[in-house]
Amino acid sequence: MLKFDHGLCMRGALGARGLSESLLQAVRFAMQDGEHRLREERDRGGLAWMELPYRRPDEILKYVQAVEPRFDNVVVLGIGGSALGTIALSTALRPQYADLLPREARGGHPRLFVVDNADPDQICALFANLNLSRTLVNVISKSGSTAETMAAYMVARGLVEKTLGRGHVRDHFVFTTGPDGGALRDIGRRESIKLFDIPNGVGGRFSVLSPVGLLPLALAGVDVEPLLAGARDLDSTVSGRPVMDNPAYLFATIQFLMDTHFGRNICVMMPYSARLRDVSDWFRQLWAESLGKALDREGKTVHIGQTPVKSLGTTDQHSQVQLYSEGPDDKVVTFLRVEHFDRDVTLPNIHAEYESVSYLRGRRLSELMDAELMGTAWALARRGRPSMTFTLPKVDAYHVGQLIYVLEVSAAVAGELYNINAFDQPGVELGKEAAYALMGRGGYEEMGREIREYLSAHGGAEDDSETARSSEELTE
Amino acid sequence: MLKFDHGLCMRGALGARGLSESLLQAVRFAMQDGEHRLREERDRGGLAWMELPYRRPDEILKYVQAVEPRFDNVVVLGIGGSALGTIALSTALRPQYADLLPREARGGHPRLFVVDNADPDQICALFANLNLSRTLVNVISKSGSTAETMAAYMVARGLVEKTLGRGHVRDHFVFTTGPDGGALRDIGRRESIKLFDIPNGVGGRFSVLSPVGLLPLALAGVDVEPLLAGARDLDSTVSGRPVMDNPAYLFATIQFLMDTHFGRNICVMMPYSARLRDVSDWFRQLWAESLGKALDREGKTVHIGQTPVKSLGTTDQHSQVQLYSEGPDDKVVTFLRVEHFDRDVTLPNIHAEYESVSYLRGRRLSELMDAELMGTAWALARRGRPSMTFTLPKVDAYHVGQLIYVLEVSAAVAGELYNINAFDQPGVELGKEAAYALMGRGGYEEMGREIREYLSAHGGAEDDSETARSSEELTE
Repeated sequence: MLKFDHGLCMRGALGARGLSESLLQAVRFAMQDGEHRLREERDRGGLAWMELPYRRPDEILKYVQAVEPRFDNVVVLGIGGSALGTIALSTALRPQYADLLPREARGGHPRLFVVDNADPDQICALFANLNLSRTLVNVISKSGSTAETMAAYMVARGLVEKTLGRGHVRDHFVFTTGPDGGALRDIGRRESIKLFDIPNGVGGRFSVLSPVGLLPLALAGVDVEPLLAGARDLDSTVSGRPVMDNPAYLFATIQFLMDTHFGRNICVMMPYSARLRDVSDWFRQLWAESLGKALDREGKTVHIGQTPVKSLGTTDQHSQVQLYSEGPDDKVVTFLRVEHFDRDVTLPNIHAEYESVSYLRGRRLSELMDAELMGTAWALARRGRPSMTFTLPKVDAYHVGQLIYVLEVSAAVAGELYNINAFDQPGVELGKEAAYALMGRGGYEEMGREIREYLSAHGGAEDDSETARSSEELTE
Repeated sequence: MLKFDHGLCMRGALGARGLSESLLQAVRFAMQDGEHRLREERDRGGLAWMELPYRRPDEILKYVQAVEPRFDNVVVLGIGGSALGTIALSTALRPQYADLLPREARGGHPRLFVVDNADPDQICALFANLNLSRTLVNVISKSGSTAETMAAYMVARGLVEKTLGRGHVRDHFVFTTGPDGGALRDIGRRESIKLFDIPNGVGGRFSVLSPVGLLPLALAGVDVEPLLAGARDLDSTVSGRPVMDNPAYLFATIQFLMDTHFGRNICVMMPYSARLRDVSDWFRQLWAESLGKALDREGKTVHIGQTPVKSLGTTDQHSQVQLYSEGPDDKVVTFLRVEHFDRDVTLPNIHAEYESVSYLRGRRLSELMDAELMGTAWALARRGRPSMTFTLPKVDAYHVGQLIYVLEVSAAVAGELYNINAFDQPGVELGKEAAYALMGRGGYEEMGREIREYLSAHGGAEDDSETARSSEELTE
C-alpha cells in the first residue's frame, strides 16, 4: 500500500514552526465533522466521483479491443480536467519515450497525443505529422462546448473531411461528454459517432477514473483495471480508518493548518520520479480549483486557497531548493517517493582517481535518488521548513490509482475544513465570457465593447488580430 | 522588438490594490542606484553573462559542422542551469514534435534529449532506445562534479565502452565545463575529449547564451546567431533607456513592489504559446535562485524571494485561473503574448446550427488564443489582480533572445532592489552535502550518522535502499 509520513511537519522535527500534537487534536473535531458530512453526502449519491473505481470498464475495453488495430495514433482533444489526468497517467504508466518507439516496442499500442490548448503552432504541427487514416480523435468536453476543445475539433474534423472524405468522420472520432453534453452529444447522436458518458456529478478535476481518462489510457495500452483496484483499496482503507490515522485526512488537515495557522500559502508537490512528474500538474488543478475560493459556504468573503506548485526531484534541487531553503517560510513540500524503480543501473567502477566522483562507483541510480530526497527533506527540516512524503512501493497502475484517489479525497476533506464548496469553479466564468465576447459570440456584444474600452484605456494586451493574417495557413 | 506593458498593474486599472505613479516614482532613485551599481560592476568585468551575446560562436559552429553528420541523437547530461535554458529554447525554436519526425523533416538535424535528473527509469529507457553508435553525449557541469550529471555520465560512458569499445569514448562525448571544471575538465584533457568552456563568472542560471545552451541547440539545428543578435539589441535598448521607460527595470521594480508592498509573494509566468511553455521553467530558476535569499548584503536575515510559478495559456485557465481570480490576492501574472504565430488555421464553416459553437466558424486559432489572453487579463484586472505582458512579434530566435536577456537583466536589477546577492546560491549546499553523506562520500561520515538519526527519530523518508536490489538492471 501507499505510505504516508508527516513526521517532518511536527514540532519535534521543526521546533516552533512545526505542528504540535495539541493543534492537530484541536482540529480533530472539525475533521470528524467533515468526515461525517462527506459520508452523508456520499450516501446521498452526491459524490459520484468516489464511486468511479467501482464501475466496470467493460464498455471501454470492448470498444478498445474493437478499434485499436485500426489506429496508430490516438489524439485527445480536451483541456483542464479532460486532459491533465490522462497526461499524468500516460507519463507514469506508458513506456518512457513511448511515442518515439516502433509500435512493437510500445506493446503494439497506438501513440497518444493530448492537445490541451488552442495553440495554432502546436495543432498545425501535430496534424501535419500524423497519418489521418490511422488516427483516432477523442474529443472530451463535459459541457460539450468548451471553446478550445471545440475549435481543435473543428480543425481535426475539417482535415478528416478534406483528406479522407465526410463519410469517414464517424470512424475517426469518439466523443466523451457529460449528461448535458450540448452540441457534442447532439452531433454524436445525429452522426452515429461513438459516445462515452461522463457520469452525472463528476467534475472535470475528479474525472480521471471515468471514461475521460480510462478511454484514452486504455487505447494507449494502459491496463486500467489495477488503476481502479488501487483506488478501491485506498477507499476501503481511508473509509475505515479513524481520521487521525488516515492519510487523506491528515494530508488535508496539515495543509489547512500550515496555510491558515502558519501562513504557508504555497504547497509544493515534488515527486522524485520523472514518471510521476505530471501527477503534479493534475494535482495543481485538483487543489487550485477545489480550494481557491472567494466565498465560504455562508457567502462570506474569504479569498482562500494555497497555490500548488509543480516541482521535480532531483531536477528542481538545482532550481527551486535555494528558494525553498532560504526564502520565506511560506511553503509545505510534499515528496512522492518511489521504493522500487522498474529499472536500475549500477554505476561502473571508473574514475577511481577522482575523489569528487569515485564515491558513486558501485552505487545505483536509485540510491542516488533516495539520498537526494532524504538530504533535501533533512536540509529543509533543519531550517524549520515542513515536508510530507507519500511513498509508492512501485510506479504502477495499482499504486498510482491509490495516489490519485487519496489526493482526491484530501481535496474534498480540505474543502470541509475551509468550509467552502470544493466542487464548483465560479471564478473561471468571467474570463470565459470575456473570450466569447472578444470572439464575437452572439449575446456578448456589450461586454466586448466594455473590455476593449477598458484595455485600450489601461493598456494590457491590445487586439491587433488583423495583422496576424500573414501567418502560414495549415489548410493552404 | 519585444514589447512590455504594465498598464494592468496600475491604480488606474486596479484601484487601491494597484501601483500608484507616486510609488513607482518613489522607487525611481533605488532603481537609478541599482542601475549605477550594475553598470559599474559590468565595467569592472563582474557581470560576464551580460557579455555573452557579444562572443562569436565560431568554435561552436565549426565543431557542429564537423560532427553533425555522424550523429542522429544528441543527449545532454546536465541539470539546473545546465539544462533549463536548452530545454526552453529547444521547445521554442525547434520544430514541434521534432523528435518524432524523420531526420529530413527536422531539417536534417539530430534529435535532442536533455537528461536533467538521475532517475533510473528515465535514463535506462532513453539509452535502451538509442543507437549509441549514432549518439553524441554532451556532459555539462560547471563544477565538473555535479552528482546527478556525473552519475548519468558514468552510465553513458559504461554503455559506450561496453557497446562500442573504450577507443570510441573520445568520439561520442563532448564536455562543457567551467574554468575550475575539476574532474570533468581533467578527464577531458587526459582523454582528448573535446571541451567547451563556460566563461569565468557566468553562473548556471545565466549561462544559456554560453556554450552551455548554444552547443546543444546548434547541434540540434537551432540558428544561434539571431539568438545572440536579439540579446545584443535588447542590451542596447535597455542600457540606453531611462529606468522609468525600461522594460527590465520596470518588470523588476513592479515585482519588487508587488511583493514587498502588497504581499504578492507569487509571480506567475503564463505564456499563451505552447512553444514558450518551457521558458517558464527556465525563468523559475532564474527568479528563485537569484532572489530567494536568507541574508541581505549587510548580513541581515531577510528570508525574501517571490515564488515563481509555471503556467500556460489557455491550458491553465482550466486549472489555475479559478485560484488566480478568487483565491488570495497574492500573485502577479506575467503573460507572454505572441503577435504572429508561424502557422494558423481558419476554423471551417461547419455546425452552424449550434449556437455554442457556431461563433467559431471562420475565425482563426490565433484569434482564439488572443481573445482568451485578453479575456483573462481583463477578468483578473476586474478583480483587482495585476498582470503584465511581454509581447513577442514572433516566436523566433531573435525575439526569444530578447526575452531571455530582458529577464536576466530584470533578475539582476531585482537583486539590487532587494539588496541581496543575486548571483550566489548558498542554500543548496546543505542538501547537496547531505546527499553526499548518505551516498557515503569520504569526509561526510558524521553528517551521514546525524541525518539518519534525525530521520529515524522524526519520520521522513527512511533509507531502505537494500530492498531496492530486486529491480531490473539495465546492464544485465
